[in-house]
Order: sequence, then C-alpha cells, then structure tokens
Amino acid sequence: MKTRGALLWEPGTRSGWTVEEIELDPPKAHEALIKLAASGVCHSDDHLDTGDIPLPWSPVLGGHEGAGVVEEVGPGVTAVKPGDHVVLSFLPSCGRCKMCVQGKSNMCELGAGVLAGVAPDGTHRVHARGQGVGCMSYLGTFAPYVVAPLDAVIPIPEDMPLDKAALIGCGVPTGWGSSVYAAEIELGDTVVVVGTGGVGMNALQGARHKGARNVVAVDPAPFKREKAVEFGATHVAKDYEEAGQIVEGLTNGQGADRVIITVGVVTGDLMNPAQEMTRRGGTMVLTGAAPVLQRDVPFDLFTFAMSGKRLQGSLYGTTTSRTDVPLLADLYLRGELKLDELITRTYSLDDINQAFRDMHDGKNVRGVIIYD
Amino acid sequence: MKTRGALLWEPGTRSGWTVEEIELDPPKAHEALIKLAASGVCHSDDHLDTGDIPLPWSPVLGGHEGAGVVEEVGPGVTAVKPGDHVVLSFLPSCGRCKMCVQGKSNMCELGAGVLAGVAPDGTHRVHARGQGVGCMSYLGTFAPYVVAPLDAVIPIPEDMPLDKAALIGCGVPTGWGSSVYAAEIELGDTVVVVGTGGVGMNALQGARHKGARNVVAVDPAPFKREKAVEFGATHVAKDYEEAGQIVEGLTNGQGADRVIITVGVVTGDLMNPAQEMTRRGGTMVLTGAAPVLQRDVPFDLFTFAMSGKRLQGSLYGTTTSRTDVPLLADLYLRGELKLDELITRTYSLDDINQAFRDMHDGKNVRGVIIYD
Repeated sequence: MKTRGALLWEPGTRSGWTVEEIELDPPKAHEALIKLAASGVCHSDDHLDTGDIPLPWSPVLGGHEGAGVVEEVGPGVTAVKPGDHVVLSFLPSCGRCKMCVQGKSNMCELGAGVLAGVAPDGTHRVHARGQGVGCMSYLGTFAPYVVAPLDAVIPIPEDMPLDKAALIGCGVPTGWGSSVYAAEIELGDTVVVVGTGGVGMNALQGARHKGARNVVAVDPAPFKREKAVEFGATHVAKDYEEAGQIVEGLTNGQGADRVIITVGVVTGDLMNPAQEMTRRGGTMVLTGAAPVLQRDVPFDLFTFAMSGKRLQGSLYGTTTSRTDVPLLADLYLRGELKLDELITRTYSLDDINQAFRDMHDGKNVRGVIIYD
Repeated sequence: MKTRGALLWEPGTRSGWTVEEIELDPPKAHEALIKLAASGVCHSDDHLDTGDIPLPWSPVLGGHEGAGVVEEVGPGVTAVKPGDHVVLSFLPSCGRCKMCVQGKSNMCELGAGVLAGVAPDGTHRVHARGQGVGCMSYLGTFAPYVVAPLDAVIPIPEDMPLDKAALIGCGVPTGWGSSVYAAEIELGDTVVVVGTGGVGMNALQGARHKGARNVVAVDPAPFKREKAVEFGATHVAKDYEEAGQIVEGLTNGQGADRVIITVGVVTGDLMNPAQEMTRRGGTMVLTGAAPVLQRDVPFDLFTFAMSGKRLQGSLYGTTTSRTDVPLLADLYLRGELKLDELITRTYSLDDINQAFRDMHDGKNVRGVIIYD
C-alpha cells in the first residue's frame, strides 16, 4: 500500500526528517499490518539524525513507539487478528533464544538486531523513491501504517487509549522498569532519580510502586522538578550538591539505597557524584535509553569495589514486554500510572521537525505524533 | 602481657616490618584474647607498607587473617570460652546495624572502621615503645596473641586444622564468595576468573560449587595456570585474547555469563576487555580484596548500559562471615574445599619480610606465618 512516512536520507548529518510517500509491502508470515493511532517522538530517533546512534545504511524510516489497531495479518498468523488493539514494542521478544527463555526478553537476540536496517528475514517492507528503506526497531512508527514482526506486537485492552498506549512500548517501561526491576528497590528504600525527562518521570512512578520511602528527583529544569512531584518525587533537587545534602539528611549520612541515572549524557562528572550519594552495598542503575554516553567514562572503581556497590546497566528497564506492557496498561486504567501528564504536546506527522526542535529546547516531557 | 609483633612505624614508605616486643592489654568486655596458630600474609598488609592503603596514623601492627584458640575472655563474655577454636574475621559483623540485619554483614558499619587504628571503643589494646599501636582490621595477627572484638571471633570445629583455618577469615571467602554470592552464578554458566592468586583460586572453587559448566582461568603465570586446574578451572588462558577465543568457542559467540576480576591492579585495559567477554545481560564482579585500583578507570559505559550488563563490587566476597566461615571449614573437612594446596610456603614471624618478598616475586599462591 502507499502511505507517507518521515525518512532520514542522510542519517548522522542533522539534515532533519523528510515526510514523503512510501510504499508498504503486505505483511508476511509472522507479521501484521497495524494502523497506528499515535507515535512517540523519542530521543533515540533524534540520535539517528545526529549520529549519536550511527547507522551504516540509509534511508531510514524513524519511529519506534506506536500503538494502533491490527488491520491485516500475514499468512498463518493467529496470535492477533484484525481489530485487535496493540502496542508495538521497540524491542521484540522472540521467545526462543537463551535470554528470552530465561526471563530476560529485553536482551532477546532478535532485539540485538533492531538497527540492522532490514526486517528479521533480511528483506525490506518499506520502499521509497524505488529503493528499500530500513526501519527503526523493525517498526518505523513515523508513518500511519506499520508492518511489524509479531514478536513486537502486544495486545492491550480496547479501553486503553491508544495515544497514551504508544508510550508503553519504550519510554515508560524503560524508566519504570529501571526502578521496579533493575534497581531492585525494596520497601522503605531511599531512591534518587537523576534526570526527570520522559524516562526519569517513570522511574519516579516505579519507585513509588515498589514502596520507596523517599524518592529524590534531580533535574536542573524547574518545570521538570515541578512535574517530578506529580510523578511521585518526595523531594526535588536542582543538582547533585543539593541532592547529596537531602540524601544525607534522609539517611543519617549513609547514602541512598538506589541511584537511577536516566540522563542522556553520562560523563565522569555524572558517575562519580552519583556513586558518592550511593550507600555502601547500594545499587546504581544506568538506563540504556539515551545512548549519548561517553565511551571512556572515568569511574572510581576503587571505592566502588571496596564498598560493595552495584552498577546495573538497564535496557528497556529490564522489563519483559509481553507481560509488562499489558501490566502498565492495566495500571493506567486503574489510575495507578500517570501517562496523560507525560504528554506535553502533540503534533501531526508533517510537524515532526518541530517536535524534535521542541525536544532540543527542553519544552516537552514527551511529544507525541497523532495520526487521523 | 608482653609478646612480639611485626610493626610498621612508617606506613606507606616501603620501610618493611619490624618484629619487636609489644604489650597487649587484657581483653575488655565484648573481647577475647586469642592464642594464634597461624596468620596469613596478605596483599592488604603489604598495601599498608607501600601506601596503596594509606594510613594517617602509626605505628601499625599488621595481619588480619588468623586462627587459634581462645585463651581468656573479657568481663561478661559468654559467646566464647577459653579453649574454643576460632577464626578471626578481617571484617567484624556487629549484628545490629542496617547492613547486618539485612543479611549483608560484609558491609557492617563497624567493618567500615577497621582502618581507624583503634579498637571499636576508640582506645588501643596494643602498645610499643610506650605508645599506642593501631591494629590492622581491629586484629593485628602478626603477633602470636591477639585481643579481638567478639564481632570478629567465629568458632569453628576443633577438628579443623588451625593453619588452614587462618585463610578462611579473609582470602578464601573473598574469592569463593565472589563466585557463590556476588556473581550469582547459575547452574550451567560459563564463568571467567581473571587472576588466579590467593583470591582467584577460591573464585574457581566457588564457581564449581555453584555448578558452573565452564570455568576459564586467566593468569599470565604458568604455575598459577597449572594450579588453577587443580582448583577447578576447566580451561586456562594466559591473557584476555586467549580467554576471549576460548569463551567464544564455548558460548557460540555469546560471551561469558560471569566474569570475575580478582587481580590487584585494575586499569582501563583490564575492564574493557573483561566487558567484551561478558555476554549481554551478564555480570562482571570486581573483588575488593586488592585495592590497588586506579581511581579513574576508563570504562565503556555506553556498551555496558545498552547491553544490560551488571558490575558488582564485592568486598569479602559478599559473604556473611558468621555463617560462611563455619561453612567453609565444613566444606574443607568434607574434602570439598581445597586449602592445603593454597599454601605454597610457611614462615616464622621473624621471616615476615621474606614472606612479603616472596609475594612480590610471585612465588606463592599463599604464604602463611606459623606460630609455635
């Protein structure tokens, strides 16, 4: 079918997105065609444009957070049927690799290949100007229709609003799971969340779900600190220094049980103060959502080892999408998870470059593209 | 009482140890006087001499690995009685602080003060040349008698040989626990142990206890690689490159489930290749036994976070000494833990500087001082 999509023809050059006609193949076996209601506008897509996530191929159809309704299924598909409401997961879960069968589907081997630029079978589903188009995360939600591998298609209840649902395929679980799973928060813990953007806000929610006693949000932006309180922060700080003083007072000088780092740019100045705030035997979590990380980050491993601390890398919040996406939808429907408040602005697909400009300007917790 | 001990009068200057007369106070409340049978000669004591562990006070009576027989107890002490065989733990466990009551006694608050240079009550038990002497780890096992806080005194069965028992108060649990607890090895795992000295050899034993399928020992010293096989290595490698090839073959290119770093000098060249050998979602352990760690170690946190890896600092192998010391004694008595093979050479107290020279020359897995 013919539709429209936002492409980068020269990834890594900050050339911006071109919205143009694309040709979408019908779904093959183990695939479904989804009519999207909405797509998140995520930093990871921006990284394709800036080159922070380098792509050795082009063009690319961006977008990896989407929710919608199944329009058509490939031959032999029974797992979903037309009319089903679904969330697209930015990482698929094949259910058969070692990591999947051991309950760590965020580490699925198929997921390791999401930036290969082709569908899992090695071919293209999207074409533009007569050539094959690679899709972000095997998806490409910067288009109103997506042909997706079933391993990334997760049914949700019909009463779940699809525009909110789009965010539970990447940003929400990435933050929420950093608290709920990766940090292994225990009841009564003091937790620090560093950076309260589209990921960090959900880390705050997750910390409260796990019974954290004190949740300290650290962000330089006043509007995000205000929002952070809405999302569950019991204390807010503008920087590490202020956070350190708060933590010292809350923990009798012992330090925070968990420190969750959700910011996009991790440097030595970020890691060592975070460690100083972490108690002996405590856990630091580094979310893998925003990969603009310095590759050689200086880190005081002496203190780290001698004080028995843990650093946990966390991709997709260490969630298992097939169970956690429906759980998050359910928590929202029960009023226990805030999603509406995450969405600062909505855009049409044609305004996508404006959406990224607003992201760069720090105007949004999350921006979302709405399809007709 | 008068006895003799090995002191450093100028810690951090590589001046070596002086064996001379010391005066030992009788045990106070919550203390016991122990007649030692043996003391381990550990890198951590050497670090006092080299300055790798800086001490802001002097003189210091070295030694923190000892086992012996209770000779006398302080007022009101009922936990042990004269004649009891005991191991001295290099870190005490108070049983009352947050970390102790949460099952993490290796992080005991009292343990955090073992380098303060005074007993827990702030006074000295040892005196020399008319002045107070600080003791390594509240102990000072480089003397045939020790007045120790009960929090560091752990009864063991009488049939446990005391010279072997000395090692289960520090080096053995530090290595063994790195595998058994810190690395969270699962049945069937592929485990790499980097560095097979007095700590690493026990990490090998621990890996086998937990059912690791493949245990790859990495050490440049041929005699240690030979020993490593005795201690449970299924494969040996002389360097990272060789280890990487072995791991690749064993894991179908996925990488090791756990990589345990037990070497004394950790630099960027050590951490990043270790990470490369670790599978997605795998665990790296950094033992805190040998603190000659560079303070600003460059580390590729981008890959770390995006591949959901874990770095676990481990002090004392994350063991709980009060239960693990008797367990290790029992495993030895059943023939399931090798200790005899750890001891390459024994020394008299007067030969202590020779013992450290042999350590520097890499001649020993472990050297042990035997008392009469």
